[in-house]
Amino acid sequence: MLNVLITAGPTHEPIDSVRFIGNRSSGKVGIAIANAARRRNLDVVLLLGPVAASPAPEHGLAVHRFRTCDDLQTLLNAHIAAAQLLIMAAAVADYRPKPNSAMQGGKFRRTNEPVRLELEPTPDLLAGVGEVKRPDQYFVGFALEPQDELIAAATSKLKRKRIDLIVANPLETMESDQINATLIDNSGVVAAPGMMSKVDFAEWFVDAVLARVTR
Amino acid sequence: MLNVLITAGPTHEPIDSVRFIGNRSSGKVGIAIANAARRRNLDVVLLLGPVAASPAPEHGLAVHRFRTCDDLQTLLNAHIAAAQLLIMAAAVADYRPKPNSAMQGGKFRRTNEPVRLELEPTPDLLAGVGEVKRPDQYFVGFALEPQDELIAAATSKLKRKRIDLIVANPLETMESDQINATLIDNSGVVAAPGMMSKVDFAEWFVDAVLARVTR
Repeated sequence: MLNVLITAGPTHEPIDSVRFIGNRSSGKVGIAIANAARRRNLDVVLLLGPVAASPAPEHGLAVHRFRTCDDLQTLLNAHIAAAQLLIMAAAVADYRPKPNSAMQGGKFRRTNEPVRLELEPTPDLLAGVGEVKRPDQYFVGFALEPQDELIAAATSKLKRKRIDLIVANPLETMESDQINATLIDNSGVVAAPGMMSKVDFAEWFVDAVLARVTR
Repeated sequence: MLNVLITAGPTHEPIDSVRFIGNRSSGKVGIAIANAARRRNLDVVLLLGPVAASPAPEHGLAVHRFRTCDDLQTLLNAHIAAAQLLIMAAAVADYRPKPNSAMQGGKFRRTNEPVRLELEPTPDLLAGVGEVKRPDQYFVGFALEPQDELIAAATSKLKRKRIDLIVANPLETMESDQINATLIDNSGVVAAPGMMSKVDFAEWFVDAVLARVTR
């Protein structure tokens, strides 16, 4: 039975005890992929960010929750060695407040003055996993890019991060129930199934990836 | 039939086309209050932020969605004159990126460099509604404060914003299914029903407020 590790949802990087920097990922695609993989009797570990929806854990499906990019990195480190297939559908915020930056500690009290927030990049998780990938592992990433530079930006990301396959999505995918994905590997575009629901896409996508992993 | 206007959930202030500044409000208390008020045959307008859960609109319950503090202000301006009872359970992020600050326009590309984000305070909605309140209107606010300064900070907020009643909650209320609320008016603490589920609290709270509005 193939071991699949899937990341889904956004990260939230705390600014103070109530405010955070987030992104608009709904987690829908990653959760749908986890459900589709489970239905094919794959052994699924789902790493899921701070979203309200969560699949119930069941035989063959383990769910671990994360909030920040650091949380997700810790979970990835713990689970990646056992994974034969990794699908990185989570969308990290990429930036977080620097330690000791403005507003930190408890709940910052509102004033009428502007605030300068110093942000630092979070660890690049996709590049990190690309560096430790074994030849028997197959890694898939996601790229959310403006339509007019979709293929070029996603192809560049695929090569930079040294992964096997990237799913390119236009920005409009966010928070929609529909997706219009393009699959790209190191040979170029390999599939573009057109606009479909995220649930239908997940079913198609898992079969498409399994065909590539097991051939 | 009493007209009730309820705000619930967080605000999201965009940083770029995918990232935002948010807060950790789940909207659960405000949604539960809207449901409790509807069950008492009140005429309810619910202004609801970017959360996944939403009650289905039905006879006597209208739901309007907002994302930013500006969106919420526009909705408040449209609905406040008709409201006899206003319950401001939404939690605004209080700060947003200044126009033309770093990262804006499309999706900011991740770099390895720090970023300095200039934030400005959002309009103070609670103080704004306090200023236009008519004598026939009853306004309730919420305060989320550290336990050790809960009563003092909430009382100060009640007086500053010129509202009728404030619901003080410790920070631990966030994202919990439980709430330990203290109701404070201009005479001081008027009720502290103890720790209970947010749904049970909403039932108790609507009766407590109606008793005050109609006496």
